[in-house]
Formats: sequence, structure tokens, C-alpha cells
Amino acid sequence: MTPIISIVGKSDSGKTTLIEKIIPELNKRGYRVATVKHDVHGFDIDIEGKDSRRHKNSGAHTVVISSPQKIAMIRDVKEDLTLSELRGRFIKGVDIIISEGYKNDRHPKIEVHRKDAGGAPLCSKKDMLIALAGDEEFDIGVPCININDVQRLVDIIEDKFLKKKGKPSIMLRIDGENVTLKPFIKDMMIRSITGMISALKDCEDQKEIEISISL
Amino acid sequence: MTPIISIVGKSDSGKTTLIEKIIPELNKRGYRVATVKHDVHGFDIDIEGKDSRRHKNSGAHTVVISSPQKIAMIRDVKEDLTLSELRGRFIKGVDIIISEGYKNDRHPKIEVHRKDAGGAPLCSKKDMLIALAGDEEFDIGVPCININDVQRLVDIIEDKFLKKKGKPSIMLRIDGENVTLKPFIKDMMIRSITGMISALKDCEDQKEIEISISL
Repeated sequence: MTPIISIVGKSDSGKTTLIEKIIPELNKRGYRVATVKHDVHGFDIDIEGKDSRRHKNSGAHTVVISSPQKIAMIRDVKEDLTLSELRGRFIKGVDIIISEGYKNDRHPKIEVHRKDAGGAPLCSKKDMLIALAGDEEFDIGVPCININDVQRLVDIIEDKFLKKKGKPSIMLRIDGENVTLKPFIKDMMIRSITGMISALKDCEDQKEIEISISL
Repeated sequence: MTPIISIVGKSDSGKTTLIEKIIPELNKRGYRVATVKHDVHGFDIDIEGKDSRRHKNSGAHTVVISSPQKIAMIRDVKEDLTLSELRGRFIKGVDIIISEGYKNDRHPKIEVHRKDAGGAPLCSKKDMLIALAGDEEFDIGVPCININDVQRLVDIIEDKFLKKKGKPSIMLRIDGENVTLKPFIKDMMIRSITGMISALKDCEDQKEIEISISL
């Protein structure tokens, strides 16, 4: 499953700026990156060529704009989705997901901290903090990296999330809802399905399997 | 699998305007609609709150903006995707997909035709044309509906695509690529997986099953 890491910090601490530096460094090392931006207040999206906007305004639940270079999609949701839900539903084919914000989501975090902002960091190890990126040292049991030392920050991300492979995982959604599976059932389903698929021609060495069934 | 219908026609024939009328009528009848707009020349997307744009510009392959009301996603692709590929990868939880354009995709079509534009319709039955919406009659073996008779156009869409359920279908993607399956294998996989899942608690009456496995 694609690892998720959240860049958190007080407002105006420089989260976006840090993400802008981390992404090219990850790209340079050969990794494909997705980002997630949380916008609790809602956002407006404006698409050049107004047809898709007219579709949305007339009541379409989902609008997709497709070109040979990129795809955009806008869709309604009933509630705020967690990072895991966003990963499962919308993000495929990347090596790592970096979120801006999502302080309360249960994923590993790097906190951006500035001395000027005053006070102590927002997160600690119990919030799954793995490093502090800032201009000040704190004795909080995680590495405090200089905010400009992007190499070292990316080394930490790479070591922790990109070099080792996790054990196989499975996610099952039925009619759009995630279904919680017990470990035995997970294992049984992973082995049955991968076994079934490995018997198909040219499908011996799969890494990601996605199946959609409509009944 | 969610049905796809394409609204096609010469440029400025009124495709977007017709889609704007069809969507609310489908909504009124209780159907949830997705639309797909084809933009062969590429498009620009501008998101209020520039952080997500900064993520994309710094090299993110995929950017997601998430709010409690809606989600937007922009991602790179290597080539133009077909409607079936867009449906499989990006569109979930709707009853019908309406595309604007995609004249050459193998999906049922309604053509918008205006007498003023001159000439004959672009499509015929061999292009999977199911109706002509216009201001002129043609003897082409499909109903010619007045462009303002949205009720009747939506009746045709509803009768053909929304009232009957197709037979079960399965789509398998491995490492992002669709895998073609023979009918026997399809049937075997559908029965095995639905059987497995129907043994789980509260999963007896599924309509859509999605499974993602990472190895």
C-alpha cells in the first residue's frame, strides 16, 4: 500500500514551501509523488474551457476532464474523507503520498517548526512524528533537521518508507464502503486471489492488483 | 458496469446545452450522473488557494484537494485514455456516465443536429447512434427527437441503460494495466470472489465489489 506522510505545522510555518522542495528531490531519486491538500472550508475550482463547469453546475455528481497529458476530476462527497480513503479511491500508480495538513490523521508526520512562531512543536512521537524540520532543537525523541537540509529529510523519508516493502495488504470496498476484514480473512483472500491471478498468462509478477466487479 | 452514453455533434451544435438539460432530468428521476469532457488540446485548471498548484508545479504526479463537500484530483497521464479506462479508474458510485464528444469511442451515442449547420448527421447506427436530437428528420433507422423534448430523450436513455441490469462483469488491472480475460476465466473469478465475499458478515447483497491488493 502506498505510504502516506503528512507535513504538518502551525499556519505560515512553511509547509507548502517544504513540500515544494521535497517533491523534486524525491523525483530526482526516481519516485513518483502524489500530494493531498486538505481544505476544510471548501474550495473553488475553475477550469479553462467552461463546458465542464457547466456540467457540474447543472447537477453532475462527478466531472472528468481528459486530455492526452492530464486528467482532472471533481466529485461530490458526503463527508470529509481520511487520507486512507483518499488513497484507496483516488490515488494510484505513485510511490509515496505527501499530505499537507491532516494533523489528526494516524499517519507518520514531519512537523515544520519556526523559532519565530514561538512555543513548542505541535506534535510528538505519540502523534507519529518522525522528524522535526526547523531552525531549533528540541529533546522530543525524533531527529531535528535543519529546514534547509532537504537531502537529509528525504533520506529519512526514503529509509523509512521507500526502501523496504511492507507485507501484502488488501482493501475491500462494497458499494463504495470499506469493509473491515479479520487477519485470517485478509490472508485467505490475498492468497486465493493472487493464486488465481498468477495462473493467468503474463501475470506472474504482479505488484498491484485491482479488481472491480459489478453485479 | 456503469453505462456510458456520448453526446456528439458538430462544433457549436449545442452539445453542452443539451447535457445541461439532461443532467437535471436524470437527477429528478433519481439517477446520479458523471460527465466526461474530452479536451484534446489540454486544459488549464486553476484552484483557488494556490498550495495545490504549487505542489503540482514542483513535480507532483497527482494532486488531490479534499474538502467535506467535494474532492478534486489532477494527475498526469501518458496518453489519451478511452472512456472505458476513465470509467474504470476514476468514476465510481454513479448510475450513468455522459460524455461530451468521444465520437470515435465504441459507446452508444446521441447526436445533436441543427438544420442551420447543414449536411447530414455525423453518425449512423454503425457508430452506435441510438437517437438524433435536432430540428430535422432523417431516415437513418434511429428516433429523431426534437432537441427541446428532453423528457423523451431521457426516456430513451432510461429505457436502454438504466432499467435493466446487465450481467455481472469483472475488470482486472495489474500494476495499472488492464488484463484481458477469457469468458471462462471471468466467470470463474466472478463466482470465486463473490462467493468468498458473500461468506463475510453483512456482505450478502453486494452490487459493486472493489479489491486492491499490494504485494
